[in-house]
Amino acid sequence: MAQQHLDPPTDPTAGPSRKLSASLDQGGTPLGDALAEYLRAQATEFLRSLRQHRETGGTSNGSAESVDAARALRRSARRISGSLHTFRPLLDPDWSEGMRPELAWLSGTLAREHAYAARLERLLGALNRLSGSSALPAQSAAKPVGQSAASASAVGGRSAGAEPGTPGPRAQPAGNLTVGAAKAGALLDRQLTLARTRAHSAALQALGSSRFHAVADSVAVLASEVPLTPAATATDLRPMAAAAEDRLTDAIAALPLVTAGHPYNAEALVHGLSADTAPQPQDAPWHQVRLLLRLHRYAREVLYGEDCPADVRLLAAGQALNRHRDAAEAASAAASAARTPRIAPATAYALGVLHADQRHEVEAARFAFQRAWQLEVVRTP
Amino acid sequence: MAQQHLDPPTDPTAGPSRKLSASLDQGGTPLGDALAEYLRAQATEFLRSLRQHRETGGTSNGSAESVDAARALRRSARRISGSLHTFRPLLDPDWSEGMRPELAWLSGTLAREHAYAARLERLLGALNRLSGSSALPAQSAAKPVGQSAASASAVGGRSAGAEPGTPGPRAQPAGNLTVGAAKAGALLDRQLTLARTRAHSAALQALGSSRFHAVADSVAVLASEVPLTPAATATDLRPMAAAAEDRLTDAIAALPLVTAGHPYNAEALVHGLSADTAPQPQDAPWHQVRLLLRLHRYAREVLYGEDCPADVRLLAAGQALNRHRDAAEAASAAASAARTPRIAPATAYALGVLHADQRHEVEAARFAFQRAWQLEVVRTP
Repeated sequence: MAQQHLDPPTDPTAGPSRKLSASLDQGGTPLGDALAEYLRAQATEFLRSLRQHRETGGTSNGSAESVDAARALRRSARRISGSLHTFRPLLDPDWSEGMRPELAWLSGTLAREHAYAARLERLLGALNRLSGSSALPAQSAAKPVGQSAASASAVGGRSAGAEPGTPGPRAQPAGNLTVGAAKAGALLDRQLTLARTRAHSAALQALGSSRFHAVADSVAVLASEVPLTPAATATDLRPMAAAAEDRLTDAIAALPLVTAGHPYNAEALVHGLSADTAPQPQDAPWHQVRLLLRLHRYAREVLYGEDCPADVRLLAAGQALNRHRDAAEAASAAASAARTPRIAPATAYALGVLHADQRHEVEAARFAFQRAWQLEVVRTP
Repeated sequence: MAQQHLDPPTDPTAGPSRKLSASLDQGGTPLGDALAEYLRAQATEFLRSLRQHRETGGTSNGSAESVDAARALRRSARRISGSLHTFRPLLDPDWSEGMRPELAWLSGTLAREHAYAARLERLLGALNRLSGSSALPAQSAAKPVGQSAASASAVGGRSAGAEPGTPGPRAQPAGNLTVGAAKAGALLDRQLTLARTRAHSAALQALGSSRFHAVADSVAVLASEVPLTPAATATDLRPMAAAAEDRLTDAIAALPLVTAGHPYNAEALVHGLSADTAPQPQDAPWHQVRLLLRLHRYAREVLYGEDCPADVRLLAAGQALNRHRDAAEAASAAASAARTPRIAPATAYALGVLHADQRHEVEAARFAFQRAWQLEVVRTP
């Protein structure tokens, strides 16, 4: 079963990637050299995006190029870290054990600003949908840091008719709910924009720190000289990649996929009002599968190159798990905003609807994952 | 297409129901006599349940027998009214046009008390589920009228730990949400129990009114003498039953079934926070199909008898539409409770979660209807 996904593409017209041929032995077995080549390529990409990030003004201007550069930086940091983990028997242990937490710190720090922006975008989009698409202005999560687009006055555009005394006896309370959506949007905008601004400062500080320069130096070394163990060059990489896949399939086997495959099972909202403030424990195994799926994908890239035909099943499953994570965090942000002291009941009501909406997105993502995973393996040629 | 559902059961071992044989001509065509027989049987059932209702103490004690009798009374009232509508060309027009609104008034009045009790049961059940099944006591919607089981002190059993000053800095707001669920339950219990008590009084008053006695007298006449038009006895009933089925299939064809068949389409919660207090306009076509499905079922009963093998597809579709109606009304009750002045934000939040939960039940019911309706016609033997 595990071996199935590790077989190279069998399409005879595709031919082996030029990039890879040097790292395969006569029988086509991927050896340690393929790992060295992959790590060098990722390290080079890391340094390239770091240079681009600095040239485009760094994180201080928030331009599209700068955002792309930060994303590429995180992307290569994740791949280096993941490969060090999967293939750790082949690498100098002190060096690789020291490097992984530093890469995790860096990509985590850089990811946070983007995550808050995306979360706000998701929540304001949902509020718009729930309000019939016209009560709130199109949100602008891509706005430069420090500006609050959905200010209370802007999002309250429809609330004028609900001012006390103006409307009929039924329009008043109705209007209150819509005002609730607008106020909820303004509250989330304020809280998540503040969090984003703080994450931005933290990222700026991190990129100027000596800790960051030490990481960058290590990656620069990696770009020229991968610290493989003496035996690594002639070692078959497939057993380690297969072990990564086994960890993934074991974790997936432990997921409640039968429930997830039954539409509208109402599982994701169970405990939606429980006393626990911690992230929903039911989400954790899914988040874990998301990370293991990623490690499995990177291992495939090491063996067959980044140009290796994509496994559409892995892609679809990964997208479902990203959506699962995003919706779970958005639901949590809505619940957290509802705990703000002295908010109006209408605001709290809108946040409750929003929370439940995002928890249903969580459930929908699990359903989508289950569907994707049950598909036969199909590879694009 | 329409004719398909009106064909009698073809299972050769089943044989025609004895009850019906008198109303079929030599070729097995159901004629006007079948309608008269059906109306007489329903009128007799109406009078029997009315007698039982009085003997079991009427609506004043709320015993199981009394509830069953009221249900049987409504059941026959709906069947008489529906048949008068579908087969109106065969009946004295003045009499039948005068009788239908009176039957609708009666069954509507009797249905209300039960509807409020069922709605409260559904909402408290959902709150229990959302609170992790232990924050609220098992609700008791079957309790005698006038007693509020889930009083604030009873449902707040878990709230002691969240009293100001007692818990740690994070336990406090978390506890508030659970207190919100308990308070939301108590609020709904208060509002729906009050509504139920009023409905109960209205039903009592209706059963003692001269208007009711006039309806009962009309039904008593019907039990012995159905006012058919002179030509009715020899008239084939099938074209009128087919017209009822056509109205159903036309209304179903106008439903957004493609969307409904796509799980997690998030349609039911669109406008969940819009300014409109009226019942969701998107629900109306589904409610209409529910009524037309019922009329179609009754027409089949007229043609083939109540003992006619059930069409499992019709049963499943009808159950889905009942669930759709119940969830829509429960969602509306939660939204309405959230408009109560001076409620705590935590209460409003819980009501928002509850509203969204029930709107997702609406969506799930549409999905179930779509599934049931797409099934091939299968009849139990």
